[in-house]
Amino acid sequence: MGSILIKDILLDGRRRNVLIAGKRFQCLDAAESAEAETVIDGRDLALLPGLYNTHTHAPMTLLRGYGDDNPLEVWLHDYVWPSEAGFNNEDIRRGYDIAAREMVRTGTVFFNEMYFGIREAVDAVVRSGLRACIGLTVLEGHPLSMTEEDFDFLKEWQDPTGGRIQWAVTPHALYTVGPDLLKWTAQFAQENGLLLHTHLAETRTEVDNCVKDHGMRPVAYLDSLGLLGPNTVVAHCVHVNDQEADLLAERQVTISHCPCSNMKLGSGIFPYERLIKAGCRITLGTDGASSSNNLDLREAMKFAALLAKVGGNPQLLPSSQIFDWATRCGAEAFGIDAGVIAEGKLADCILVDLENVKMQPCHDLISNFVYSADSSCIAGVICDGHILYQR
Amino acid sequence: MGSILIKDILLDGRRRNVLIAGKRFQCLDAAESAEAETVIDGRDLALLPGLYNTHTHAPMTLLRGYGDDNPLEVWLHDYVWPSEAGFNNEDIRRGYDIAAREMVRTGTVFFNEMYFGIREAVDAVVRSGLRACIGLTVLEGHPLSMTEEDFDFLKEWQDPTGGRIQWAVTPHALYTVGPDLLKWTAQFAQENGLLLHTHLAETRTEVDNCVKDHGMRPVAYLDSLGLLGPNTVVAHCVHVNDQEADLLAERQVTISHCPCSNMKLGSGIFPYERLIKAGCRITLGTDGASSSNNLDLREAMKFAALLAKVGGNPQLLPSSQIFDWATRCGAEAFGIDAGVIAEGKLADCILVDLENVKMQPCHDLISNFVYSADSSCIAGVICDGHILYQR
Repeated sequence: MGSILIKDILLDGRRRNVLIAGKRFQCLDAAESAEAETVIDGRDLALLPGLYNTHTHAPMTLLRGYGDDNPLEVWLHDYVWPSEAGFNNEDIRRGYDIAAREMVRTGTVFFNEMYFGIREAVDAVVRSGLRACIGLTVLEGHPLSMTEEDFDFLKEWQDPTGGRIQWAVTPHALYTVGPDLLKWTAQFAQENGLLLHTHLAETRTEVDNCVKDHGMRPVAYLDSLGLLGPNTVVAHCVHVNDQEADLLAERQVTISHCPCSNMKLGSGIFPYERLIKAGCRITLGTDGASSSNNLDLREAMKFAALLAKVGGNPQLLPSSQIFDWATRCGAEAFGIDAGVIAEGKLADCILVDLENVKMQPCHDLISNFVYSADSSCIAGVICDGHILYQR
Repeated sequence: MGSILIKDILLDGRRRNVLIAGKRFQCLDAAESAEAETVIDGRDLALLPGLYNTHTHAPMTLLRGYGDDNPLEVWLHDYVWPSEAGFNNEDIRRGYDIAAREMVRTGTVFFNEMYFGIREAVDAVVRSGLRACIGLTVLEGHPLSMTEEDFDFLKEWQDPTGGRIQWAVTPHALYTVGPDLLKWTAQFAQENGLLLHTHLAETRTEVDNCVKDHGMRPVAYLDSLGLLGPNTVVAHCVHVNDQEADLLAERQVTISHCPCSNMKLGSGIFPYERLIKAGCRITLGTDGASSSNNLDLREAMKFAALLAKVGGNPQLLPSSQIFDWATRCGAEAFGIDAGVIAEGKLADCILVDLENVKMQPCHDLISNFVYSADSSCIAGVICDGHILYQR
């Protein structure tokens, strides 16, 4: 069982010696003389929880900067889909690896993934040391879509990471999966204790077509098929009205807000006040780097906070709240016993470089991390008690 | 005369040997064997122009993260102004130095500054190697406001930086400087060949009060006092209508768009389409780090581009255009013979680390730099032919 002693690091406003033993924080006020396999000098550092990215398409990092600033349809039809059709297993493996490297480097410890290539995803998680919820993607008529038989491997599957991987059924969206198949994914997820992860109410077009095709708005439609519950994670939720917000809250659905993707694609403005008022459970995601251009969840925090204020109220979504979404709320939604730094919790954390000029002066550590920092301020990343990156 | 040879660097899509002699790019296709005092291995690097920040209050970096997420009035009255009242010369010097370090580290080569402490500003420019337009700030009734006599030093002033410093008259805003004093600043700037730099149409309150007090909207009011012309730089211009946009274009005023500040303070959404349609000259600024929380103009590029698209059109403000605002347009507005990399131009440039995971893959260098990168991707900064930062 490995151990790490981080000496004299800033945590909750004072200098402490933090001892990690195995996967967990053993003691936050250890003796300076405590023994550990690895000792880190924390004098110029602050300790913060790691970041939990609740919506990604990691291999799409291969399409970073490819065809952007185009209308959504042109981007999808002329750039994204033709490229994806040509991806082979090696491409997907490379995509997961670039994505994992970027996530580690930017302070992320967990990603909730929706794509193809389960084997490649598992390998990337093993190699990078990250946590992940890997989606088994269902897409009507797609050659790589998972079928009922494909799911059989789960019965025998042994986690090579000792618990860093969980699985979700991921029907892509209500406009790419028919009602029968959607209903089946919900049943299968429930019967097998899996999470369900899908896109929801991302664009106005999706809402209009759903009403036209199914006589219901998207939230009601998914609910009618049994998809909404406490084990469901839905990305976007840009176009939801008051009734839909109430239903999402009532069903205890986890929402993954992806501000950069929504802004860049012109999808609309996340209805922050409506969802908060309804009592929704909100977390933060980047979406794929083909739309948000990176997987930097710290950057997404600043975008989310500023997007909430753009309507005219600078008090909305303060730095402490968006930081909570990106850490504690994200971990909680996936049942990961982490997201805060406390004795007994899983040791997922970031070492923040206080000497970096972007962190100076330091009136408020969280404000600086959310509003001023970038990845140059991240001096180290620890996940599950292992050092994934250290400068 | 110093010289720098950057070997085998990516520039305009191909590998080239770039020779800087003295302050200027001498040859973009030099021989590999060309002699130079300093040789940089550019194999993992790309060369881009430096960034020109057209609206800053550098010493306010001292208030980074202090009192944010508050309503504008609370933030100003309870946090900013009481703190500023206590700043001494040493504080201001420290503020300029932190600001200059952050700007250098994030790829900026020039800042257009509005604050107090001219001597400290000049010292920071000398020490950092940056370029600046330093404002002589006029603020009705303020103890540090510049008076006509204070401007006398300009007659004798010798630039210790060999041309990196220029001066502007900076009446703070139409709501803090009365009409007579505003008119005087415009006359003084014109008579002495100085730039004029002020805030304009930042908030709805400013517009409403201007109409109430002067019977005119802000743009018309400043124009009536003679403030608007090709040597005028106005920050914000969030609340301008079609007529005002036309007038700003007609007067060839330079607009400094500060997206992070406008979003964070909830000031409103920059009317990108209206200003572009009118033919306005637009550049990019960060504003002070007390509102935008950093002076990272690269980050401001992503915010500006995504803010333009948020209304629903992802084609607005593509990465090439916002990059042009932050480089060529910024330099041009201040008459700096730089902003593009070309033989004979002043050598202001950034070395971009192509091995950084945020730059991979590289379908489009500018897109990656605008939408994906952060300061960790900046491996070096050169201004006026001098290396200000190199990793």
